[in-house]
Amino acid sequence: MFKLIHKDKSSKARLGKLTTAHGEINTPVFMPVGTQGTVKALTNAEVKECGAEIILGNAYHLYLRPGLEIIKKAGGLHKFMGWDKPILTDSGGYQVFSLAKLRKLTQDGAEFSSHIDGSKHFLTPEKVIEIQQTLGSDIMMMFDECVHYPAAKDYVEQSLELTTKWAKRSKDFFTESRKLKAEGQLLFGIVQGSTYKDLRDRAVGDLLKIGFDGYAIGGVSVGEPENLIHEIAEYTASLLPDDKARYLMGLGTPPDIVEAISNGIDMFDCVVPTRNGRNGQAFTWGGDLQLRNAEYKEDFRPIDEACGCYACRTHTRAYIRHLFNTEELLGLRLVSLHNIYFYVKLIELCRRAIAEDSFDSFKKEFNRKYNEKEKKQ
Amino acid sequence: MFKLIHKDKSSKARLGKLTTAHGEINTPVFMPVGTQGTVKALTNAEVKECGAEIILGNAYHLYLRPGLEIIKKAGGLHKFMGWDKPILTDSGGYQVFSLAKLRKLTQDGAEFSSHIDGSKHFLTPEKVIEIQQTLGSDIMMMFDECVHYPAAKDYVEQSLELTTKWAKRSKDFFTESRKLKAEGQLLFGIVQGSTYKDLRDRAVGDLLKIGFDGYAIGGVSVGEPENLIHEIAEYTASLLPDDKARYLMGLGTPPDIVEAISNGIDMFDCVVPTRNGRNGQAFTWGGDLQLRNAEYKEDFRPIDEACGCYACRTHTRAYIRHLFNTEELLGLRLVSLHNIYFYVKLIELCRRAIAEDSFDSFKKEFNRKYNEKEKKQ
Repeated sequence: MFKLIHKDKSSKARLGKLTTAHGEINTPVFMPVGTQGTVKALTNAEVKECGAEIILGNAYHLYLRPGLEIIKKAGGLHKFMGWDKPILTDSGGYQVFSLAKLRKLTQDGAEFSSHIDGSKHFLTPEKVIEIQQTLGSDIMMMFDECVHYPAAKDYVEQSLELTTKWAKRSKDFFTESRKLKAEGQLLFGIVQGSTYKDLRDRAVGDLLKIGFDGYAIGGVSVGEPENLIHEIAEYTASLLPDDKARYLMGLGTPPDIVEAISNGIDMFDCVVPTRNGRNGQAFTWGGDLQLRNAEYKEDFRPIDEACGCYACRTHTRAYIRHLFNTEELLGLRLVSLHNIYFYVKLIELCRRAIAEDSFDSFKKEFNRKYNEKEKKQ
Repeated sequence: MFKLIHKDKSSKARLGKLTTAHGEINTPVFMPVGTQGTVKALTNAEVKECGAEIILGNAYHLYLRPGLEIIKKAGGLHKFMGWDKPILTDSGGYQVFSLAKLRKLTQDGAEFSSHIDGSKHFLTPEKVIEIQQTLGSDIMMMFDECVHYPAAKDYVEQSLELTTKWAKRSKDFFTESRKLKAEGQLLFGIVQGSTYKDLRDRAVGDLLKIGFDGYAIGGVSVGEPENLIHEIAEYTASLLPDDKARYLMGLGTPPDIVEAISNGIDMFDCVVPTRNGRNGQAFTWGGDLQLRNAEYKEDFRPIDEACGCYACRTHTRAYIRHLFNTEELLGLRLVSLHNIYFYVKLIELCRRAIAEDSFDSFKKEFNRKYNEKEKKQ
């Protein structure tokens, strides 16, 4: 399902292809986040025009709203939301432990109250697979406990033991139920272990014994210092087999993603382009701009002169600033669109640099320009 | 500038063509409202795809934000907002008397405090023309006092006297300043007079003596009962000359517009399709739907099966209900888009019926379907 196509000679960056039931994904890949069955503020058509090959959904959110009955009747998440390319669904482990009011965590699963209406729910590793089978996601994630930073080692060790048991149960249920269901869904394991390298070692060892279609690095960017994020991601990536896709969950800024690619990561998802976009932060090849700022009041250049997105082809910084200033929804639409376009193009250029064995110099040049103080008009 | 093409034989409906500096407009026409230089929640490209030939801007709002200096530097409102078709700007009379905190109304003009930051401003009929010259709108509206309903006759009479003086000053300033400026902008007069027919008579008489490129019927849909809206609009339209465009300001629901067309009105603007769209109300050939309602939870039909807009081609009522339920912006985008598309198509069909001399039966058939209780799936 994953084919390693090329390894960059100047870094650990990799080029690959992941085959799913709804099409092929070229890696490294950025996956726009569509938590509730929509990439925030954008249409499917716009997300596709940006060049996105896969989007994310979230099992926890979709299980609560609209609920599985409706999605089942619609014929799965793809049909419900009208998206015909691949979808990866996060298991909801992160949300159960951060968003929901957690009632009880047992060996069997997690009992929690919905963050929306307080209704009680019980999720087990098996139930979470079942939810994702109903959603019909192309890539399912196992149910895990995501430990925040900082965490005492004995707590992390205990949590990891539970996550590993849940990994085994997820795989067993997946294997059993797959016999009855249509083929085509992939299941990824999630490596936890916080910032403890020996626990990351142990986590990878256990997951590899169970065997998954791909491996995610979880429990990063949960409060730890930035250098530690990359240290742990690089270390964990180095433990993972060459012939499986590696997914770094929830990261990050454009330089974060470039750094992680150079450390051998293949897949990314992050709310930053849309969430920050809704607040007026635009990413460009020359760094990020806060378009609400008064300095853009009479700046009649596009967000990024080198960008080919609809926002940059059509509108100026001055106009977009006016839209934010007057609380017009078009403003956040335009910047969300631009940012997703930027992330997708950035990764396309990364792939090209890997193919040319020049990723290390690409990374240096990207960082140099990105960190250069932007010249005023 | 306005050419009357055809008069329907079954009603007072008219077919016309209005020529502006940014292109021709086929009348009857619906003009989506872009108060602050954006049709709320939509891109220019989407508004064009809906078939809109002209949009509205608002002099009061744009004068306050972003301010004239910025729009002047951008090269006018068309360039500032990236819209290359005609723009009509409302003078801001309505806003000064409803939105702003009014300080003082004199024969010379209106002193008011901005509803945004409380800053003081003084607008005169001449200043309002000047603002709209800076905006570069294709059709400018004169500065008037818009009287709300109900209003005592002596108050309306006094107000009308002022509005008529302002009409004269607007025209004089327009004529004088046009000598110095580029040609191409049109100036419309506004007929006030509340629900008093003799005052509407007097207003039309005075405005015709001054002479404008077109005539708007103002001071309707300001609190009076619905039958009175149409009675006054029909009466006022009957006083206006055949060879000038007639614009009914701020109206209305789809049946309102069809009714007004049958009474000889040519131009419409209304916030209903976008404002109500943002609240989940969708207009269809079978009446309006409130898509937030639970009855659409598992309704996998498009908003309107007979509609060709992006929302109807791509998404179901159940999905759009989910988007509103989870406060996702795509929901209000899709319904705003659908509603603008619906209004534009409705008027296109009206034009066709007028061309075929069958507007009266078209109107009856439209109302019959629109008021039919929608059949459940």
